[in-house]
Amino acid sequence: MSFLKDDERLDYLLTEDMRIIQSPSVFSFSLDAVLLAKFVYVPIIKGNMIDLCSGNGVIPLFLSRRTKGKIIGVEIQERLYDMAVRSIQYNGLEDQIEMIHGDIKEMPEKLGMGKFEVVTCNPPYFPTPSKGINENEHLAIARHEILCTLEDAIKSASQLVKVGGKVAFVHRPNRLLEILFLMRKYKIEPKRLQFVYPKVGKEANTLLIEGIKNGNPDLKILPPLFVYRDNNEYTDELKEILYGRE
Amino acid sequence: MSFLKDDERLDYLLTEDMRIIQSPSVFSFSLDAVLLAKFVYVPIIKGNMIDLCSGNGVIPLFLSRRTKGKIIGVEIQERLYDMAVRSIQYNGLEDQIEMIHGDIKEMPEKLGMGKFEVVTCNPPYFPTPSKGINENEHLAIARHEILCTLEDAIKSASQLVKVGGKVAFVHRPNRLLEILFLMRKYKIEPKRLQFVYPKVGKEANTLLIEGIKNGNPDLKILPPLFVYRDNNEYTDELKEILYGRE
Repeated sequence: MSFLKDDERLDYLLTEDMRIIQSPSVFSFSLDAVLLAKFVYVPIIKGNMIDLCSGNGVIPLFLSRRTKGKIIGVEIQERLYDMAVRSIQYNGLEDQIEMIHGDIKEMPEKLGMGKFEVVTCNPPYFPTPSKGINENEHLAIARHEILCTLEDAIKSASQLVKVGGKVAFVHRPNRLLEILFLMRKYKIEPKRLQFVYPKVGKEANTLLIEGIKNGNPDLKILPPLFVYRDNNEYTDELKEILYGRE
Repeated sequence: MSFLKDDERLDYLLTEDMRIIQSPSVFSFSLDAVLLAKFVYVPIIKGNMIDLCSGNGVIPLFLSRRTKGKIIGVEIQERLYDMAVRSIQYNGLEDQIEMIHGDIKEMPEKLGMGKFEVVTCNPPYFPTPSKGINENEHLAIARHEILCTLEDAIKSASQLVKVGGKVAFVHRPNRLLEILFLMRKYKIEPKRLQFVYPKVGKEANTLLIEGIKNGNPDLKILPPLFVYRDNNEYTDELKEILYGRE
């Protein structure tokens, strides 16, 4: 497999009939990305979607199995962008998915305002610590708000999405207030909010949220999602999300 | 039972060794009040607590079984205030619970700023409709924001609570953004948020939230609470809340 570089692997994308290039030292997709790709509303037949902070392209790859529309992925790290491009080629999805190597903050100017039915984003979760980060640069940029803050992501999403279009994020519950405040600030009205709990009886460790550009206030709190059973196996609902068919 | 008026009943307060005066045409306590009384932090040995929009005094009565501190209840409707006073007398709790007949907006001036360790409030849930309300006045005032808006409740609570003290509300999830925005506006930092779901697989229909006056941002999403099983019996966790011992 000569197109794999360094410590890259060609992993199965769960039971999808797709593969994805990953590398433990650069980027591997997380459960959160999978949950977001299954949570978000998508138009089935046509439409334009864009995924910000796309990493190795995991969300565009998943979305391609839920929609016949066009999907753009934007990734600022050239190494990750390059992995995404090769995964898209490997899966023969060049006609449906386009990767852009660039800064999400520049995309509204580059691609146009209000052009997308759907925007997804699994942004870096952690503020940049003042005392430095004990990780390699690739992982640090993916996890910390070094090149992209939460406000950058929400502002760019708001500029890219059409009026009435959907914007969906996955993030940590301790950022909930910030997310809601920023969504309102940038006219994305929160409509669907789901909390993900590692197990019954534990606090939520992930949130999924979808808003509508210029939508009317009417927030629904969806049923909670539990990831693991007491025996540390995936719950049935999570198996359905991971391995079930749409 | 000559102290009961009109269609009042002397109901058991679940399995607590207490009774409460209720009336279907005036006020009966809801599950939400019980959940709030069990959800909120209370100091066990001593302290001053105040319950706003107290109705027939259900929350002070429940709280009296969780704390030896002093509890004030504030109710604007004289008829409900009067029921609460008689229930407190019936249960011999005059030394621990005091009812005040008055407007919560006047309590900070009347009782002093920053005097309470804990403030609870189960406010009216619904905005006042422009086309009138098809209920009697007692029920309308208890359910609609006729005499007390959400902002009135949060502002009064913020003025009454000590720095570092707790403020807890029960409300509907579609008001979540407003609640969070107003708590921040009045310096009550949201710390614990729990959603209540009628059944597995349904959207949440109730939220419980507790904040700390001038607290640091650090919101936890508590495990979800399910009220009914598929067979419409209470879940075990709800039975524990309703009938279990502290």
